[in-house]
Amino acid sequence: MAAGLELASLHDSLESPVSESMNFLNEVSHRYPDAISFAAGRPFEGFFDLDGIHHYLETYRRHLMDRYGGDEAAVSRTILQYGRTKGIIHDLIAAHLRVDENITVDPESIVVTVGCQEALYLTLRALRRNDRDVLLSVMPSYVGVHGAAQLVDMPILPVRESGDGIDLDDLVSVVERAKASGLRPRACYVVPDFANPSGTRLSLESRKRMLRIAAEHDFLILEDNPYGLLGDPSGPPTIKSLDGAGQVVYLGSFAKTGIPGARVGYAVADRLVRGPHGGTESLADQLAKIKSMLTVNTSPIAQAVIGGKLLENDHSLRAANTLEIETYRSNLRQMLDGLGSRFGGDGSARVSWNTPAGGFFLLLTVPFAAEDDLLEVCAQRHQVLWTPLHHFYADSTPRNVMRLSFSHLLPHEIEEGLDRLAGFIREQSQD
Amino acid sequence: MAAGLELASLHDSLESPVSESMNFLNEVSHRYPDAISFAAGRPFEGFFDLDGIHHYLETYRRHLMDRYGGDEAAVSRTILQYGRTKGIIHDLIAAHLRVDENITVDPESIVVTVGCQEALYLTLRALRRNDRDVLLSVMPSYVGVHGAAQLVDMPILPVRESGDGIDLDDLVSVVERAKASGLRPRACYVVPDFANPSGTRLSLESRKRMLRIAAEHDFLILEDNPYGLLGDPSGPPTIKSLDGAGQVVYLGSFAKTGIPGARVGYAVADRLVRGPHGGTESLADQLAKIKSMLTVNTSPIAQAVIGGKLLENDHSLRAANTLEIETYRSNLRQMLDGLGSRFGGDGSARVSWNTPAGGFFLLLTVPFAAEDDLLEVCAQRHQVLWTPLHHFYADSTPRNVMRLSFSHLLPHEIEEGLDRLAGFIREQSQD
Repeated sequence: MAAGLELASLHDSLESPVSESMNFLNEVSHRYPDAISFAAGRPFEGFFDLDGIHHYLETYRRHLMDRYGGDEAAVSRTILQYGRTKGIIHDLIAAHLRVDENITVDPESIVVTVGCQEALYLTLRALRRNDRDVLLSVMPSYVGVHGAAQLVDMPILPVRESGDGIDLDDLVSVVERAKASGLRPRACYVVPDFANPSGTRLSLESRKRMLRIAAEHDFLILEDNPYGLLGDPSGPPTIKSLDGAGQVVYLGSFAKTGIPGARVGYAVADRLVRGPHGGTESLADQLAKIKSMLTVNTSPIAQAVIGGKLLENDHSLRAANTLEIETYRSNLRQMLDGLGSRFGGDGSARVSWNTPAGGFFLLLTVPFAAEDDLLEVCAQRHQVLWTPLHHFYADSTPRNVMRLSFSHLLPHEIEEGLDRLAGFIREQSQD
Repeated sequence: MAAGLELASLHDSLESPVSESMNFLNEVSHRYPDAISFAAGRPFEGFFDLDGIHHYLETYRRHLMDRYGGDEAAVSRTILQYGRTKGIIHDLIAAHLRVDENITVDPESIVVTVGCQEALYLTLRALRRNDRDVLLSVMPSYVGVHGAAQLVDMPILPVRESGDGIDLDDLVSVVERAKASGLRPRACYVVPDFANPSGTRLSLESRKRMLRIAAEHDFLILEDNPYGLLGDPSGPPTIKSLDGAGQVVYLGSFAKTGIPGARVGYAVADRLVRGPHGGTESLADQLAKIKSMLTVNTSPIAQAVIGGKLLENDHSLRAANTLEIETYRSNLRQMLDGLGSRFGGDGSARVSWNTPAGGFFLLLTVPFAAEDDLLEVCAQRHQVLWTPLHHFYADSTPRNVMRLSFSHLLPHEIEEGLDRLAGFIREQSQD
């Protein structure tokens, strides 16, 4: 065996807290497979149906047979051969956005990607030209945005979170300071509906103001919206639906509303890009060029499965997820009730939590630093898992906050999990 | 509509010849859909079978049912939920490599990727730490390697091609010059079996010498092998099968031997990586960390389709491709015969071609610069497409050489295509 490579000679994302976070969290869940996990942010599995894959494929196949006038070779080629870089279900995605989100976009401005994560990467890769280019993001923030930014060596300037999701006054001052120091803020990443990890939701007024700020300071908004459809339909509209100027790149995912195992997501990127000779293309076309060097195209078989699900539900994923939506709401209620009954009587308020209106997550504040070593102790002694909040800051500074995820749990698991968590917190608070 | 972004403010890969190449080539094939295409390097579609997808999925499902002792929820979760970053069919891929390629590797050193292109990107992203890190590649070279290298801002140092595939004396001098000027050559990219675009094949002796050079100068060999299985089974072994030291990262693809529409490939990366405290992990584990920030995991549905195909063929893709192999061989023979009968009598040898022993491509040298403008003329007047060789140099310098691909054509298309091509070449030679 040869000498081996030095980790220090590889890309520095591999030594970053983000990379170590993901490794650590995966590894803990692996070592305690029987623990109840408030850590995993996965969709509910209770309605998973393998036979559905076959139905969806056949539905999409019939759809193509109609489109191609019965030309079976053309249908096979579309699903089995190398395919269009921007994807094959862009028209169905555009219809879904119209039906479910009141977003009207040209299907040509959609790039179908390998999950939302690839869409995020493509966008950041396009926007990061040199050392001056920086990303803005509310902090704490989804681990994947830290990861994608690191892969393109793009620093993130943190923006303060508020009860409303993002502190827009802070956003403006971060942007102004950055510009004053020669930096070029290219985009602001935000999950306006039920953020990961905080579960917060931006008000309509904040959405509008954020659009105005982005236009004034010439940066894009990267609107990541994996959970919005699973919430109250009378909530505020997506930022993209308020955007008439291509200011928003909308990052879509079918992992929570379609099928996680298809790994299909997309970007809507209708901002115009001017070439050196005055011609224009869309930002989507630029993302497609990058995709052709990265993954070539998204599996058309996987796209066909999602396409079939969209077709069978008249393009509405809200309709397709009636049972799931009820499950997530009920789990959230049970979490809030369960926390109330276990910690609510504590007048000292040493344990507190926020109350999101939807999504997969909430934050629990405890009277001690919720750090990795304690997660290990908790897993071993109490068989319950949670996520230390520092992982969403991409640093190693422990904070007194845990992210609790409840999306994939059954009612009895939530009860038992909260009992175990209460036992652990009592134990720690007495130490 | 807002002002739009300037292309010059986006990542410079978007202004590169590579990006413009891919755009131009796609666009030409789009504008001349009825032309006979010696340009597209796609696998043969004649044996495509959409029903096969269902069979393969069910075969893989039964395989998992056995493994999980009939636990249907575990089977559904494996195929439909977020999955293991390194993939779920690594064991089947390891068995395939043993059966078809005489390569023995720990399944844990395999990362299943979104096509071979992602495997290439992950490897280059890991190896490119700073401005000193460079990639070596025989030139002309597969367009995708230029693309992936550009995404990580990694320059490629060209190595001369020889009739044997790569000029190893030139490799040594390129490496020595690079080191002398402070650069760090991290890897050499090579397609040893039926290279794209040249169709050349490395001899056994060259494979062994290349391994020795890589060990001596401490760089990795990136062995990309999409076509090897489709050639003569008595040909030289893969470089990976000769590698006892983890010197080779083997880049595998199921696009040509499995199903292109699954977009499943993989990297075998068993080189050890030493951490700061002396612990070791495999390079595969590092690639997985990058993948978790890029695409999270490869669609397990797509993996299940490929897994089913491997299972149904006792892990042998050579066995699965009996008909395809005969088709590619027969097409190659027909191309060589057809070129001979059309241009062979020309004693002046103004038109010449190489004679690969397999693969999808050959090179045709013509008495004029085979540039993009002429391709356009040829498409319009003669309805036949080919690829100007400069696209494989990632520059815009026209050369007197065309790449001709014949993998996806039917016999009558080859005859008609060669007639049209001969007409075009006659016309140009008279100009």
